[in-house]
Amino acid sequence: MAQKILKMQRIGIIAKPHRPEVKKVLDGLLPWLAERGIEVFLDTDTAATAGLPSAVQKSRIPSLVEMIIVLGGDGTLLSVARLVEGKDTLILGVNLGGLGFLTEITLDGVYTALEKIFREDFIIDERMMLKSNILRQGERIAQSTVLNDVVISKGSLARMINLEVYINYQFVTGLRADGLIVSTPTGSTAYSLSAGGPIVHPSLDAMIITPVCPHTLTNRPIVVPGDVGVEVILKSKDEGAVATFDGQVGFSLREEDVVEIKASEQKIKLVGSPDRNYFGILREKLKWGG
Amino acid sequence: MAQKILKMQRIGIIAKPHRPEVKKVLDGLLPWLAERGIEVFLDTDTAATAGLPSAVQKSRIPSLVEMIIVLGGDGTLLSVARLVEGKDTLILGVNLGGLGFLTEITLDGVYTALEKIFREDFIIDERMMLKSNILRQGERIAQSTVLNDVVISKGSLARMINLEVYINYQFVTGLRADGLIVSTPTGSTAYSLSAGGPIVHPSLDAMIITPVCPHTLTNRPIVVPGDVGVEVILKSKDEGAVATFDGQVGFSLREEDVVEIKASEQKIKLVGSPDRNYFGILREKLKWGG
Amino acid sequence: MAQKILKMQRIGIIAKPHRPEVKKVLDGLLPWLAERGIEVFLDTDTAATAGLPSAVQKSRIPSLVEMIIVLGGDGTLLSVARLVEGKDTLILGVNLGGLGFLTEITLDGVYTALEKIFREDFIIDERMMLKSNILRQGERIAQSTVLNDVVISKGSLARMINLEVYINYQFVTGLRADGLIVSTPTGSTAYSLSAGGPIVHPSLDAMIITPVCPHTLTNRPIVVPGDVGVEVILKSKDEGAVATFDGQVGFSLREEDVVEIKASEQKIKLVGSPDRNYFGILREKLKWGG
Amino acid sequence: MAQKILKMQRIGIIAKPHRPEVKKVLDGLLPWLAERGIEVFLDTDTAATAGLPSAVQKSRIPSLVEMIIVLGGDGTLLSVARLVEGKDTLILGVNLGGLGFLTEITLDGVYTALEKIFREDFIIDERMMLKSNILRQGERIAQSTVLNDVVISKGSLARMINLEVYINYQFVTGLRADGLIVSTPTGSTAYSLSAGGPIVHPSLDAMIITPVCPHTLTNRPIVVPGDVGVEVILKSKDEGAVATFDGQVGFSLREEDVVEIKASEQKIKLVGSPDRNYFGILREKLKWGG
Repeated sequence: MAQKILKMQRIGIIAKPHRPEVKKVLDGLLPWLAERGIEVFLDTDTAATAGLPSAVQKSRIPSLVEMIIVLGGDGTLLSVARLVEGKDTLILGVNLGGLGFLTEITLDGVYTALEKIFREDFIIDERMMLKSNILRQGERIAQSTVLNDVVISKGSLARMINLEVYINYQFVTGLRADGLIVSTPTGSTAYSLSAGGPIVHPSLDAMIITPVCPHTLTNRPIVVPGDVGVEVILKSKDEGAVATFDGQVGFSLREEDVVEIKASEQKIKLVGSPDRNYFGILREKLKWGG
Repeated sequence: MAQKILKMQRIGIIAKPHRPEVKKVLDGLLPWLAERGIEVFLDTDTAATAGLPSAVQKSRIPSLVEMIIVLGGDGTLLSVARLVEGKDTLILGVNLGGLGFLTEITLDGVYTALEKIFREDFIIDERMMLKSNILRQGERIAQSTVLNDVVISKGSLARMINLEVYINYQFVTGLRADGLIVSTPTGSTAYSLSAGGPIVHPSLDAMIITPVCPHTLTNRPIVVPGDVGVEVILKSKDEGAVATFDGQVGFSLREEDVVEIKASEQKIKLVGSPDRNYFGILREKLKWGG
Repeated sequence: MAQKILKMQRIGIIAKPHRPEVKKVLDGLLPWLAERGIEVFLDTDTAATAGLPSAVQKSRIPSLVEMIIVLGGDGTLLSVARLVEGKDTLILGVNLGGLGFLTEITLDGVYTALEKIFREDFIIDERMMLKSNILRQGERIAQSTVLNDVVISKGSLARMINLEVYINYQFVTGLRADGLIVSTPTGSTAYSLSAGGPIVHPSLDAMIITPVCPHTLTNRPIVVPGDVGVEVILKSKDEGAVATFDGQVGFSLREEDVVEIKASEQKIKLVGSPDRNYFGILREKLKWGG
Repeated sequence: MAQKILKMQRIGIIAKPHRPEVKKVLDGLLPWLAERGIEVFLDTDTAATAGLPSAVQKSRIPSLVEMIIVLGGDGTLLSVARLVEGKDTLILGVNLGGLGFLTEITLDGVYTALEKIFREDFIIDERMMLKSNILRQGERIAQSTVLNDVVISKGSLARMINLEVYINYQFVTGLRADGLIVSTPTGSTAYSLSAGGPIVHPSLDAMIITPVCPHTLTNRPIVVPGDVGVEVILKSKDEGAVATFDGQVGFSLREEDVVEIKASEQKIKLVGSPDRNYFGILREKLKWGG
């Protein structure tokens, strides 16, 4: 997991929109970075929040910088991860509120963290992402890359959906359920956990397939190797079924649509402290050991 | 649970629509009932399926007859139960396909079952129903009665909903989840079971409150006495949240809408065989003891 | 749940053994009770802890007093409940440490609680208990009464036990599992909850049957009416199977032994504050709503 | 998973003791193997069952043969796997009764399977094993190797045990529970599944850590990489706590004993059919898709 990189010269900052504290953070951070000779790129929304004129399009930032500071929560980091996918840009998650699984650095700790990074005293925590295609009658009609999960779920009025699950095009099981989650290890502590899935250490190369409220009580979460392909076919006529990517982007499905999911070729690179402690975060977030 | 009634003179038949086998069943059943001096009432859909001219409106049937034969599955029986609510009409569930929790009599067994009923050799299995009101800014905008469950759930694209749960207007818990199920004992083997709820014997006077994929892992299913009122307040701004009644009728919810649920004053009366065996049905349906 | 009783004249005190703070509590409490004209009875262990000479046998206390103050945790209260079973003696649980489900009054609150009780400003919270007999070849070889649960479980080296579960002598299911818990609503937040059982409100007249690590994944917790009898027959030859009562008293079982469980005729009477809030205790103990 | 080996010349047969059908199987199998020029080695028990004089010690068989035929169930295969550990001997599991996860070949299919193997038309399914040491005051007092799981559990009369779990000597969590299972992917469909653990594909290099009836409801199963070390320290004074290896060999634990678990350097080699289908076995064993 550990790997050092070259000194940074350009940094992007992408903040969660409509958060007033962002301006205050940037008022301190921007001059501090300038003093250290770092060129900073803000996306349009973040620049507007901070009352600054100069901005670039959000999607261009990953190609312009060596590292992106994400100011927000895990949700903001998930959306930045989708932008960065396929590039080497580092991501530093800074949490505006509580503790996040992905954004473990707090506002108070951001200067200390950056100083450590500039001293090259940090680790790169590589995380698997999933690439997903949706096929309709054999043609690709949508695609996305996710850091947490791809979810196929029933419409809000439907009673359940019927799905067929395949691995490497071999039939695994039929499923009548509220839905199905295909998750990375990173996503195992998100929606999959609420649906009864296991916690999977992020360094494992694996996917977690978790049924949501399965009608057959023996349909349990399954962990499969990260190098397989998972295919899910919608077998319900009812309208309203959707595929959602990281819980942020949704796509309406029709009967016989196929959702293909496999590991992305490139991993995302999160910047972490050398004393980052995965199980310490779990203990705090899940209130273990009360 | 056992209680005898007077000899029957009028029987209604309500069938699941669009099922070709219904015509064949009626071709045998109608003359058989006529021979025994029973007057039969069919609803418009069922009459059309059977190619018969004479029919009455479905909602009128419960007031016209002493017993309704439901030809279908548990879903058809749920919809008939809502019609019958508040009346003394008996319901006999006949399953067109496999075994149902509520429609335990098979097509093969229908004549034997009716002969037993005419000999007054049967039991009445009374089942609790739930009455639900939806209040918006203090005014009732919807109501329904259910035999299985009232479900408050997120829209299909939303990540979760925030709810507040009260019992007798006392705060119980906040909940971030896919949704919440308030179920009768009858409904405990339906959706609530898929969501991790317990099996509750139908003779218990109780409600089961089961969270669906709760964000807080310690939010467990709760069984409360049948004489309390449950109030659920929607605390999410996101659109798409719905209340569904027996999984069949849906109603869109807005932030601060209140869903009130309490036991209906009258119970529904299912006709059962004297050797009806609740746990035998459980064993077969859940494949216990494999 | 509410019911007033006569002014108290005799109070028993039973404390958790080997707890040094008990002496300090009694040093304050005994003179305070004496000033109010209350005669106090200590059991031998409690008297010894407090360095006091006068004591009676623990089992005699329930017949001598109107109320017993339990100083300890839920475990101490469970053992006192077994002594009191069948009598009208009230029980006031005072927790020496954290918050208990049954011992909700803290050391700090004990004087305020007692003043309220002497003003008759309190409620009586009646809780169902279970009576259990163990039969070997038709003869009763052991019996106990419990406030939480009767557990039949495998020996520590065995892989599982085979059980047969009956309700009112009708076969319910065979079970291959680590064990089986038959619990009162009070016990539903104890061991049964760890094994996946539901939370059942203590005012419900019901028993919860919860399998422990069942081999058949569809063997789910079942809630049955409080007026049935549950019979569990051990079908394993392996040695080491035991029945435990409230997790405190154990009894070795042999193949074909029958464990019978039904509701005790009399309920135990816990003294509670009028603003006692069951769901508030649940929230705090289970860390709901984090 | 696929890998061909040299033609076989010596085969061992180890059967489940006290099974009368074993004699009949051997009566057919031994001459059939002799005809094909294979030298066969039986262990003492198996030879006695078959009424044959010539036998070797069971523990010597793995060094004498290229493949061992196991006649029994998954339990018999687990015990043979412990003998074979560290050697290259192949294992062919033949199930005397139903379908096993590990012994998928039925009695009827044994000749066909052997013919395929002699034609080199088979695959080798390598399975990870776990090595476990028990340390008392720093000294190793026991060790074992398992194909399924190492379980640390409470004594049958105790209410729970307190454990501390470490990974690579870093503290992960304290645990109050009935016990803790550390399982291979192979073992994920055994006891761990009953305790709520996920199904993990056997080709994954991972360990599954599953708490049994944890007191803290948020203590969920965790999947960790196969190259870590897991250390579990017993923190309870109560007697009766044990470590069990594959559910077959038990060892009494004392307070502060340390159970160390890590992957064995060598994998066990199961012989499988080229059309072996892991998910097909799951579907049949778990009755998926009913």
